[in-house]
Amino acid sequence: MTLITIDDLRKIFENYLRETMRYSLAPLPLVESMLYSLLNGGKRVRPSLLLQVLAIQSVDLIKPGLRTALALEAIHTYSLIHDDLPAMDNDDFRRGQPTNHRQFSEATAILAGDALLTDAFGWIANDDLVSPDTRLQLIADLSTAAGSIGMVAGQIADIQAQGQALNLDQLKHIHHQKTGQLFIFAVKAAALIASLPQDETDQLLQFARHFGQAFQIHNDLMDLIGDQAETGKTSQADLVLEKATYPAILGLDGAKAALEAELSGAQAVLDHLTQTSQKNYQALAPFLSYIKLEDAHG
Amino acid sequence: MTLITIDDLRKIFENYLRETMRYSLAPLPLVESMLYSLLNGGKRVRPSLLLQVLAIQSVDLIKPGLRTALALEAIHTYSLIHDDLPAMDNDDFRRGQPTNHRQFSEATAILAGDALLTDAFGWIANDDLVSPDTRLQLIADLSTAAGSIGMVAGQIADIQAQGQALNLDQLKHIHHQKTGQLFIFAVKAAALIASLPQDETDQLLQFARHFGQAFQIHNDLMDLIGDQAETGKTSQADLVLEKATYPAILGLDGAKAALEAELSGAQAVLDHLTQTSQKNYQALAPFLSYIKLEDAHG
Repeated sequence: MTLITIDDLRKIFENYLRETMRYSLAPLPLVESMLYSLLNGGKRVRPSLLLQVLAIQSVDLIKPGLRTALALEAIHTYSLIHDDLPAMDNDDFRRGQPTNHRQFSEATAILAGDALLTDAFGWIANDDLVSPDTRLQLIADLSTAAGSIGMVAGQIADIQAQGQALNLDQLKHIHHQKTGQLFIFAVKAAALIASLPQDETDQLLQFARHFGQAFQIHNDLMDLIGDQAETGKTSQADLVLEKATYPAILGLDGAKAALEAELSGAQAVLDHLTQTSQKNYQALAPFLSYIKLEDAHG
Repeated sequence: MTLITIDDLRKIFENYLRETMRYSLAPLPLVESMLYSLLNGGKRVRPSLLLQVLAIQSVDLIKPGLRTALALEAIHTYSLIHDDLPAMDNDDFRRGQPTNHRQFSEATAILAGDALLTDAFGWIANDDLVSPDTRLQLIADLSTAAGSIGMVAGQIADIQAQGQALNLDQLKHIHHQKTGQLFIFAVKAAALIASLPQDETDQLLQFARHFGQAFQIHNDLMDLIGDQAETGKTSQADLVLEKATYPAILGLDGAKAALEAELSGAQAVLDHLTQTSQKNYQALAPFLSYIKLEDAHG
C-alpha cells in the first residue's frame, strides 16, 4: 500500500525544482524568465505521474526519478512558452498570469523556451543516480517524444489544421503527438528507471494513452464550458482560431461520453495492473479524478 | 600527412546530412522548413572542424564523428532560425536567401528550430558508433555549450546589451558564449571521440577560443565593410540595432589588428600542437584562411 499521495510527490518535486534552479549560473534575466514559467502554478501532472509510478514500486525510487521528472516538466514548460507566442496561439494569459512574452518580451520568451529545452537533456545526461545506459535511453525517448516526430510534429499539424475540417481519427492523432507523447514518456521513463518487465510497461503505456486522450478531451470541454477563472485562459480561444476540438466534432454530449470512455479504459488498465502485479497501481487513480467533469462527480 | 581537405569533409558531411534527413518521419511541412535552413548554403565550419580534428588522428574516426557533427550543425542552424525571428534580429535574408520565417511562417520557423534542437540530442543518444559513456559526455557538453549558461546566455546578453556601451571584455564574453561555445564544443567533441590526452585537448580548446574570437571579429568587420552580396545579410544590420561590435569599440584598424592577433594566436597553437604531437595539426590552418581579410592576403 503506497502512502505517498500525488500532493506529497508534487511538494517533493517543487522543492527539487527550486533547489536545482537556485544554483543556476545563467544570466539573471534568463533565469527569471525560465523560473516565471516553471513556477507559474502548474499542476505538475507529468512529473507526478512519473514519480508515482516509481513510488508504487518503492519509495526509494522517487529520488532517482527526480532529475528526469524535472527535465520532462522543463520540456512541457518550454512548449507552453513557445505555444503562447504571438506567432503561435497568441495567448496573453496562462493559469491566470500574463504569459511569458507578455511578462518579459517575445525575445526573452523564445530564449527561455530554448534554454529549458536545451538544459533538460544535459540534466539527464549528468544524472548520477541513473545508470548510463538508462540515461541514454531516457534522452533518446524524450527527444523522440518531444521532437520532429513527437510533440513538435503535433504542434505543426495543429497549426496546419486551423480552419480545416478534421475527422475524429485525425484529431486524436494530433493530440496523441502534441499532448499524449509527454504523458507516455512519463510512464515509460519510470518503467526504465525501475527496470519494470515488458508486460507491465506495456500496460502502463496503455494507461498513459487513455489518460492523455482524456486529458485533452477534458481540456477542450473546459475551454468550452469553463470560464477564465477556472482555466486561467481566455475562454473559447480555440474557437477563435477555428481549431478542431472534441466538442466541435462529437458535440458536447458526445465529447463528454468520449471522456468517460477514456477514463473507464484507463481505470480498467489500472484494475488489470493491480491484479496481475499485486502492486498498488490504484495509486494512479487520482490522476483520473482530476479530469473528471464536475457533473460526473455528482 | 592528412590528405583529407576541408572541402572533402564538407562533402562527406553534406551527404550524411541529406541521407539522414531523407529518412525523417516528421510531417512534410516541418521537414521542409528544417531542411531549408539546414541546406541553406552554410559553410559547415563547425562540423568540418570537428571532423578535421578526427581525420588528423585517423580517417577511420571520421565516420564515428558524423552524428555528433550533424547534431552540432542542427543546433547551430536552430540558433540562426530563432535569431532571425522578428522578435530577435528581425532579419529578412540570410546567405542571400529569405530567412526561414520569411520563406514559411513565423510559427513554422519557431517549430523548425525547436525540432532541430530536440532531435539533435536524440541523434547522439542513439549513435551506436560511439561508446555510451562518450555519448553521455557529448550530450552533457553540447547542452552546456548551447543552453542557459552557453549560447542562449550569450543571446540574452546580446539583446540586453543593445544600445548599451560595452567594454571590450564584456563584448568578448558575450561572443565567447554566443559564438565561441559551439566552436569549442566542436574540438572538445572530437577530442572525446578520439580519446585524446588532456594536454592535447587543452591545446585544441585554446585553438578554438582564438578561432571563435577571430570568427566573430571577422563577422563584425564584414558587416561593416562587406556588402550584402558577400555576407548575404542586410548590410550594417548590427548598427541599426545599435549592437556593440569590435569595430565600434576598437575602431576599424583596431578591429583588424585584433583579428590578426587572434589568428596569430591560433596559428601559434597549431605550430605547438604539431611539434608536440607529431601529428598534422596544420590541416586546421585552412580554417584560419577563411576568416583572413581580403587585404590581409595581398
